[in-house]
Amino acid sequence: MTIPPAQVGMRVEEVDTPALIVDLDAYERNLDRMVSSLGGSSVRLRPHAKTHKCPIITHHQVSRGAVGACCQKVGEAEVLIADGVRDVLVTNQIVTPGKIARLVALAKKAVVSVCVDDAENVRDLDAAAGPVGVRLPVLVEVDIGPHRCGVDPGEPAVALAKLVDSSRHLRFAGLHAYHGKAQHIYALEDRINAMEAAIGLTAETIRLLKEAGLECEVVTGGGTGTYQIEAASGVFNEVQPGSYIFMDVDYKRVEGFPSTFENALFVIATVMSRGKEHAVCDAGLKASSIDSGLPTVWDRPGLAYLKPSDEHGSLRSTDSTPLPRIGDRIWLVPGHVDPTVNLYDWFVCVRGGYVEAMWPILARGALR
Amino acid sequence: MTIPPAQVGMRVEEVDTPALIVDLDAYERNLDRMVSSLGGSSVRLRPHAKTHKCPIITHHQVSRGAVGACCQKVGEAEVLIADGVRDVLVTNQIVTPGKIARLVALAKKAVVSVCVDDAENVRDLDAAAGPVGVRLPVLVEVDIGPHRCGVDPGEPAVALAKLVDSSRHLRFAGLHAYHGKAQHIYALEDRINAMEAAIGLTAETIRLLKEAGLECEVVTGGGTGTYQIEAASGVFNEVQPGSYIFMDVDYKRVEGFPSTFENALFVIATVMSRGKEHAVCDAGLKASSIDSGLPTVWDRPGLAYLKPSDEHGSLRSTDSTPLPRIGDRIWLVPGHVDPTVNLYDWFVCVRGGYVEAMWPILARGALR
Repeated sequence: MTIPPAQVGMRVEEVDTPALIVDLDAYERNLDRMVSSLGGSSVRLRPHAKTHKCPIITHHQVSRGAVGACCQKVGEAEVLIADGVRDVLVTNQIVTPGKIARLVALAKKAVVSVCVDDAENVRDLDAAAGPVGVRLPVLVEVDIGPHRCGVDPGEPAVALAKLVDSSRHLRFAGLHAYHGKAQHIYALEDRINAMEAAIGLTAETIRLLKEAGLECEVVTGGGTGTYQIEAASGVFNEVQPGSYIFMDVDYKRVEGFPSTFENALFVIATVMSRGKEHAVCDAGLKASSIDSGLPTVWDRPGLAYLKPSDEHGSLRSTDSTPLPRIGDRIWLVPGHVDPTVNLYDWFVCVRGGYVEAMWPILARGALR
Repeated sequence: MTIPPAQVGMRVEEVDTPALIVDLDAYERNLDRMVSSLGGSSVRLRPHAKTHKCPIITHHQVSRGAVGACCQKVGEAEVLIADGVRDVLVTNQIVTPGKIARLVALAKKAVVSVCVDDAENVRDLDAAAGPVGVRLPVLVEVDIGPHRCGVDPGEPAVALAKLVDSSRHLRFAGLHAYHGKAQHIYALEDRINAMEAAIGLTAETIRLLKEAGLECEVVTGGGTGTYQIEAASGVFNEVQPGSYIFMDVDYKRVEGFPSTFENALFVIATVMSRGKEHAVCDAGLKASSIDSGLPTVWDRPGLAYLKPSDEHGSLRSTDSTPLPRIGDRIWLVPGHVDPTVNLYDWFVCVRGGYVEAMWPILARGALR
């Protein structure tokens, strides 16, 4: 873990750069906005911790009514549960003996559920859960469109659910039906159309399961881009958005309700060199992930951040805006929040121009 | 720092995934190949530590004759020097008061030099070095083509060098003339042409400096893509390649001498889901940086890794090659070595099918 770039009580201008800044006011408004956007519905909120990898943030979400957290990796679940989180869904397949052993060990300490899309994996989970003395809640993941993980909806999902249900040390807990690709369909109408088909497949699978005598306690899906569609469907009873707490350049392009969340996460950088037509800041590829597009410069219209190299970012004026000078600080909005957070060990949390808290990103690098 | 994915003595098949693997035989051949490629020349080797962020590797390089290390950040220099590296060039501008204070503090413990491209920065360095009692070696960075940092070659460089030379607590140590863009020009002839112009500008600046009574003790540049061109120029007396120790997909595309280095760094991944036409492995954007292109699958012709999501990578067959099964392990060659290494805390070093060493990536995340 790297040396913290700031101390509580510092002025924001004193924070060393590059650093990852949380605007606490905007962040808290995002937390509240999510709760109120689900208000009155019976749909449970289980935010995804892969975005922030920070148990403190999960605690904030749970204290506002979330039922627990999602994560992608056993290593993330270990960090959350060690920090007191009591209900974690691993929204992923856990297939190796070592990881399965860690997963069932965690299930002794907290409510831990997991997703499956393969019969042999179901048997492996059952065999590992028995000796440990847990009955593991298992969700069948259905591929409702993104063609990543998951069995086909309909009969293949029912067959796998039956196998789970007949496994002595597993409990069939429901369906995981997450449409990752749909989250980033910018046009609201196109997104609704994509989800309409996906929700239809999910509903039909639930119907077939019921015919087979299997009830879905949980039907979960929905990220920041679509969760309101799942929540309004009458088919899903849990949603798992993650990015809404911070947002990023790409999610801000997603029209409709997702764009009502505010940018609350920034990379601050310092200008370290200046040419006639460009300036160079100290935040490059190791400070902000560019897989979903470049960062943008916050609150400085006329200033653009261009393709970075490993440790440098180039800034150009897009109109007659003067270039920043050496030593000037700029705030960048990351192109993609999750892999950017994963580069840092600390959130520097600011309010009213001062550092109010330092939150360690304890599951940073928890890839396994 | 995350839990290590392996222990010394394990079989490679037991290493948890995703993990960053160093093939020690290939790595050591790369170290030796670099030394022999410079053999007989008086050009010094100062490999760049931004690639590996691991003092153990710098020690290997120094034990084979390197004069020290380059790095980009004061935080990297701190880690290297704390681990016993005795000569570090920061190939970058250090402009903020906090970082300058840390830089001159380091200069009490080891030979530390730094680059400048701005007169005010020269005065700031001088003012900070005095009270600490160091005389800091300073290189003038010249922009010989890439238009990132650096003053213009010729008179502007001479003027800045004079200012350094007249600064009581600084010592003019020479020129930093690195052409980052040229490293990745794939065609050898085009690369040589780009470097011919750059070397001409460097030589002319050296000539003007000599006229002004300023000798360049050091003229440094040259990464893995061009270092042989600088080394053969008669103009440069130091080169700073980094990626040659490991290579990556992008550098393997660079024709000529760079491609003689071997792939020695891999991300191992496990297949966790399988559809009819694709398989999914557990290594996505948080396991391998895609800024310079996707990873490729090592030693499995007919198998392609497609656009990843945060924690998943999709594998497809490009011919009639059967898809891997759940639990199968694949080796990926990272698209871009430096930002990929920066995602991990451990190098898992293997030889003959066993884990021989675990090297902590101590400067991972040392962004500041």
